[in-house]
Amino acid sequence: MAHQTHHITHSHSNTHLRWDKTLAPVLTVSSGDEITLDLPDGGGNQFDAHSTSESISTFDVSKADPAVGPVFVKDAQPGDVLKVEFLSLQPAAYGWTAILPGSMNFGLLSDEFHEQRLKIWDLETHAKDGYAVFKEGIHIPIRPFLGVVGIAREEAGEWSTIPPYDTGGNIDCKYIVEGSCLYLSVKVEGALFSCGDGHAAQGDGEVCGTAIETQMKAKMRLSVEKNKPWVKSPHYETSGVKAKVWDSKGEYAVLGIDADLREASRKAIRGMIEWLSGEKGLTREEGYMLASVAGDMKIVEAVDMPHYAVACSMPLNIFVGSIGK
Amino acid sequence: MAHQTHHITHSHSNTHLRWDKTLAPVLTVSSGDEITLDLPDGGGNQFDAHSTSESISTFDVSKADPAVGPVFVKDAQPGDVLKVEFLSLQPAAYGWTAILPGSMNFGLLSDEFHEQRLKIWDLETHAKDGYAVFKEGIHIPIRPFLGVVGIAREEAGEWSTIPPYDTGGNIDCKYIVEGSCLYLSVKVEGALFSCGDGHAAQGDGEVCGTAIETQMKAKMRLSVEKNKPWVKSPHYETSGVKAKVWDSKGEYAVLGIDADLREASRKAIRGMIEWLSGEKGLTREEGYMLASVAGDMKIVEAVDMPHYAVACSMPLNIFVGSIGK
Repeated sequence: MAHQTHHITHSHSNTHLRWDKTLAPVLTVSSGDEITLDLPDGGGNQFDAHSTSESISTFDVSKADPAVGPVFVKDAQPGDVLKVEFLSLQPAAYGWTAILPGSMNFGLLSDEFHEQRLKIWDLETHAKDGYAVFKEGIHIPIRPFLGVVGIAREEAGEWSTIPPYDTGGNIDCKYIVEGSCLYLSVKVEGALFSCGDGHAAQGDGEVCGTAIETQMKAKMRLSVEKNKPWVKSPHYETSGVKAKVWDSKGEYAVLGIDADLREASRKAIRGMIEWLSGEKGLTREEGYMLASVAGDMKIVEAVDMPHYAVACSMPLNIFVGSIGK
Repeated sequence: MAHQTHHITHSHSNTHLRWDKTLAPVLTVSSGDEITLDLPDGGGNQFDAHSTSESISTFDVSKADPAVGPVFVKDAQPGDVLKVEFLSLQPAAYGWTAILPGSMNFGLLSDEFHEQRLKIWDLETHAKDGYAVFKEGIHIPIRPFLGVVGIAREEAGEWSTIPPYDTGGNIDCKYIVEGSCLYLSVKVEGALFSCGDGHAAQGDGEVCGTAIETQMKAKMRLSVEKNKPWVKSPHYETSGVKAKVWDSKGEYAVLGIDADLREASRKAIRGMIEWLSGEKGLTREEGYMLASVAGDMKIVEAVDMPHYAVACSMPLNIFVGSIGK
């Protein structure tokens, strides 16, 4: 049987803010079929290319992380694995990064950043060269992926799309770019696949709470695999593309050392922000955003108790011209 | 003034197991001088190339993580930064990886692994090709670095060399290979630099508690830098070498999802061990060791509460021949 391609255009009726296994499918596909989607951004398209920091005042956080779907995949049974291959991911012409205030503040240093900030990114001008400009001298490689990729949970009821689960969802995993694939453990008949929350770039941790958020045109292939009982939480496999883009000039990093893993992470980010301020002249808010869209959180050492060591690292190829070396 | 090169041969009298600012220097150098050292391994050379899992029964963990030094660096004052440039790191002909039992068990899954295991690595046969054989079909790229690199703490008293501190020490940071450098915030006059704990290879996290432990010949340059107040914890800068070695075939990873960052990490490792067992036919102990020497712990998502997502990833270029794809 030939595989088909199906298209979903984002609309109110096929978008949801809760994982719920009783949601009616908006599309039914066979294993091996491809789907193309027009996806809203992680803020539900509340900002546009002309929004400013003041626009955050009218931002409704209850509309965050909308997922388009669910798609019913024929033959997918509980215990199977749904393989999601990312064939194409195309960001919109603009994106945004925010430091949200008060109770909307998702950031790992939310208790230390109180002023709202919105940065609009031009994702069009340098798209063919593969980067977007953060500010003069700082170019961020574009590596689009979807923050939210998941399937229905086994548990009854409505589950927010904001946290990730063993069934995926808002995993914010920057490695599942074009050419990569994600494996999810199916819990309900048909899997009930949904996705959204396009990111043009993000560092490991997404530490300020937002990436380069963008609407996205996505194409992926959904396939059912049997007999992989070891897939219980999300697994992913990347292509070899990552290295070429990121690491050509090495990295600079700050270690956070603490008896608590989360506090070690917070110290590493704080240290990175201070380095970006001291060496590169960024404001604290710029440093926090840059750590979020391009810095990586790595657990360097997790066994030499009582102290963990976590690195916040920055690829040095983002610094160009006078701000580089 | 011409810079000098000094040599330290490891001996009982220049090795210590505690950071202590009152230790007498074994060597005094000027800023910019180079030092070469013969360093014992992280177990204090208690295993040799013929040791077996049974040899662990006589292992004395109180001798773990010996540091050679301290070296007094002239002109280094509290508030300065000590720059440590790694010029050459040469492992011995063999190395070892252990799962230690009972109270000696450093691993992140120590409560789940109770049988002692020792693996001896041949670091000589394939050294010129840049790898060591874990078992047939699994080759580990050799990337030597020192687990312990540090300076005296400001606090009085004796501080174990096992945990890392803001002054460095057992940071187990795999990125500070040849060509990289480490920056440490000086707390006492002369800095009082020491190092040890050679690792031929390690993944982020060192999750089973040990890397490929090996004696090491090291050459480094120690320099004092002024006016870098943002260096409070260890900072490092890598060369661009990493990417070429590791990422050419991409990676496979398992996400651990949990409301606790440490538990998310433990879930990711557990999942990786299950994948290595299911897809690659490894025993649980082999999987745990392989995760420790070649797998990386990454904080993929730290802001979508109440759940963190941590990845344990494995570079796919370690799998060759029939065990590869």
